[in-house]
Amino acid sequence: MPALEQSRPDERPLYVRVAGSFESQIQNRSLKPGDKLPSVRDLSRRLGISTATAVAAYGWLERHGAIHARPQSGHYVAARPPSVPEPRTETRTHPPASVSIGELVLEVQKTARDTRFAPFGEAVVSPELLPAARLNRSVRMVTAAFPQHATIYEAPAGNPRLRRQIARLAYRLSCTFSPEDVIVTSGAIEALNLAIRAVASPGDVVGVESPVCYEILQALESFGVKALAIPARPRLGPDLAELERAFRKHKIKCFLMSGSFQNPLGYLLPDPAKADIVALAGRLRLPIIEDDAFGDVAFSPQRPRPLKSFDRTGGVLYCATYSHVVAPGFHIGWIHPGRFRARVEALKGITTTATPSLPQLALAEFLESGAYERHLRKLNEVLFQSTRMLGAAVAEHFPEGTRTTLPDGGFFLWVQLPGNISGFKLYQAALGERIAIVPGMIFSPHKQFRDCVRLSCGWPWSDQAESAVRKMGQLAERLLRSKG
Amino acid sequence: MPALEQSRPDERPLYVRVAGSFESQIQNRSLKPGDKLPSVRDLSRRLGISTATAVAAYGWLERHGAIHARPQSGHYVAARPPSVPEPRTETRTHPPASVSIGELVLEVQKTARDTRFAPFGEAVVSPELLPAARLNRSVRMVTAAFPQHATIYEAPAGNPRLRRQIARLAYRLSCTFSPEDVIVTSGAIEALNLAIRAVASPGDVVGVESPVCYEILQALESFGVKALAIPARPRLGPDLAELERAFRKHKIKCFLMSGSFQNPLGYLLPDPAKADIVALAGRLRLPIIEDDAFGDVAFSPQRPRPLKSFDRTGGVLYCATYSHVVAPGFHIGWIHPGRFRARVEALKGITTTATPSLPQLALAEFLESGAYERHLRKLNEVLFQSTRMLGAAVAEHFPEGTRTTLPDGGFFLWVQLPGNISGFKLYQAALGERIAIVPGMIFSPHKQFRDCVRLSCGWPWSDQAESAVRKMGQLAERLLRSKG
Repeated sequence: MPALEQSRPDERPLYVRVAGSFESQIQNRSLKPGDKLPSVRDLSRRLGISTATAVAAYGWLERHGAIHARPQSGHYVAARPPSVPEPRTETRTHPPASVSIGELVLEVQKTARDTRFAPFGEAVVSPELLPAARLNRSVRMVTAAFPQHATIYEAPAGNPRLRRQIARLAYRLSCTFSPEDVIVTSGAIEALNLAIRAVASPGDVVGVESPVCYEILQALESFGVKALAIPARPRLGPDLAELERAFRKHKIKCFLMSGSFQNPLGYLLPDPAKADIVALAGRLRLPIIEDDAFGDVAFSPQRPRPLKSFDRTGGVLYCATYSHVVAPGFHIGWIHPGRFRARVEALKGITTTATPSLPQLALAEFLESGAYERHLRKLNEVLFQSTRMLGAAVAEHFPEGTRTTLPDGGFFLWVQLPGNISGFKLYQAALGERIAIVPGMIFSPHKQFRDCVRLSCGWPWSDQAESAVRKMGQLAERLLRSKG
Repeated sequence: MPALEQSRPDERPLYVRVAGSFESQIQNRSLKPGDKLPSVRDLSRRLGISTATAVAAYGWLERHGAIHARPQSGHYVAARPPSVPEPRTETRTHPPASVSIGELVLEVQKTARDTRFAPFGEAVVSPELLPAARLNRSVRMVTAAFPQHATIYEAPAGNPRLRRQIARLAYRLSCTFSPEDVIVTSGAIEALNLAIRAVASPGDVVGVESPVCYEILQALESFGVKALAIPARPRLGPDLAELERAFRKHKIKCFLMSGSFQNPLGYLLPDPAKADIVALAGRLRLPIIEDDAFGDVAFSPQRPRPLKSFDRTGGVLYCATYSHVVAPGFHIGWIHPGRFRARVEALKGITTTATPSLPQLALAEFLESGAYERHLRKLNEVLFQSTRMLGAAVAEHFPEGTRTTLPDGGFFLWVQLPGNISGFKLYQAALGERIAIVPGMIFSPHKQFRDCVRLSCGWPWSDQAESAVRKMGQLAERLLRSKG
């Protein structure tokens, strides 16, 4: 039974701290595989915490594969504990930089999309996990119900039925908003592009997390907007003092971040941390562009709250998408632009005029039927399994000293290689074996994270996947030896 | 029988010059309504022109409503001759200007889209003229044939089947290109946006025709690109010396123009003029962005050649769309970016990632079946009729001194009001009568064309339309009197 460390302030929720104490004990082998843990009632009495907190702590450990529950018996330390520590993250804020990652990103995207490669590259869910037949039923229904769909221009802000459904589902986000607050976009990327252009002009500086998904860096580069990289701290989020300094010193026009399953780190900020960021930004009148592309891929029953749910001043431009997890071919995202609504709607009209009707109508039908929530539950179960299997495979096959994240949502791991192995060299070597991965440096405007790679696993785990990870581990070993 | 004026060089095709001579005679009343014209054989003999040219000249006059043919009898001067001269156009090139037409354009667009207003505003074809049922059949067919369409990301460059069909139809443009040359976009607006961003950066100067469609000015404004307005000369196109001066003096990064049924002037450049522009731009290595949004709405049997068909250096970025004339709800345009292909494809990926699959697949089926060409023939017949009826109604009901275009394609007239009446005031007064039109000043980065309006007529002519034009005429009369 670990004691809770109380000596230094810890901003994590209580249940995570409880779980973390157990995790340390497992890692330093004071708790061994097969050991039985105290009952929930016992734990709560001994630590003076509520039973709800005790249940949540065990839930967290289960989801992380550290323990497992046996019905009618109790909780036991798992056979294969998470033996791999987390990657180190940056702590320094770099000066603003013009972004120029273009060429390499295009190459990486090309190979990531190449179906002849083992798909650890692109952050895409395998079609076999998506509800093709149900979506086709939606298409047939709306084609019959709206026979004029093809001959009428859609409004720039989007189809009213779809906007109504998105607003109806706001309860999942612990938000309340009206259909008029929603602007439908061509995927998350258009939403982010519009948000950036609504608050920043060429030459301006924008704060981003570091690492950050390369699509955002591409967008900034294409508009001539500079990026100020503010370190992303797992489970703590950006340092607020650092953010305020960036605002005052570099006059950043907005801060672009994910609070839930950030791409590529995959961490989930606790609600109080989210509330604090939004409150600070509100005080500074600093707009936040929230990229919530993976918030729906949550491995806990409760979908996390976005930053938007803490927004009282309309300063959060919330960007989301249905492309990733349900219908890539429909290519529909959306934005709640807060107080920037007029500007974003005008930009949408100027850039692509409108989003096609038929995919919007079909998605509206799909959402209205309740099929979306049912689909998500099934999908997230599979993604949870394969993410955990990938984590275990990396722990087993990669060289000693490798560090990896083990996120509670999303479907990618951020892996830090030991001995300063180049992630780019591993990327190149893996290509030679027909395995696509993404080198870490393209997640940074400063080409940091040179010893990192991102591995995606948006598909059911398989023996081939296991072999591919083994192969990557061998390649990494070889790179490590060739340096020594 | 008019003599051909040969004293000054005239770049118009011979048949247009022959027709123009007749038109002058009709306007100065040396030929009167009901007068019989010489037979084709007679005309060809007397002027020393081919019978084909004589037939083409009479065809042109018929299409312009100046004469009509009686079977087995011959050609006669029409009862209501085109009594309205063409609007004057600008001749001066203005210095480059930052564009700021934003607010007014948004207001104009809002009213133009409002279905409670008589629809002379938006350049949109009425849904009743579009093949809704046939397009739905395409949707049903491809949904059955490609049941996975919704679950797979489309390639940024577009669906291969659609790109193949677009390349197959290149013969209509007197072009030959491959599917790989085509990038599918979210409508013409995205195509133009990508083209502009591919060749110009914020602060750069771009040459545009003046007047020019306001969507282009909006795009330039949103990217911080300056516009150099080069006068558009009906049937002659831009002055080449002026264009070269603009290139040398203002370092324009590209020239953006339409050769066929330019919006708003509606004129068609003769092929030699198109060839000359492309040749000059090729020599200067000056990219041309060709907006061919209305090239398919041709009132003659022959679809006009685009500038692209004269391009030998890959310097023409050709932008077109299927939104206007067949499926606004699909919202599909495309671009042949010439030598800027890599840059445009990358920008497409960054901006909207991809275009939805289903509308692309359905449009590909529609094009492959031959339905598109059949649809166009029927559509253009209706649009020809209503454009001519609108022209006649303006001639009848607007104040004396009003000038209007009478285009050979497209479905809008450019109307210049007499006595310096403000087009914006007429726009406002018309709104009061629930009639939407577009004031001329938003077609200029310098707010020129203050005495002009654009009237669209993408629907079958009706008594209500006639009354609306009469009402506008009365409003214009009132504005004229209130100035005197």
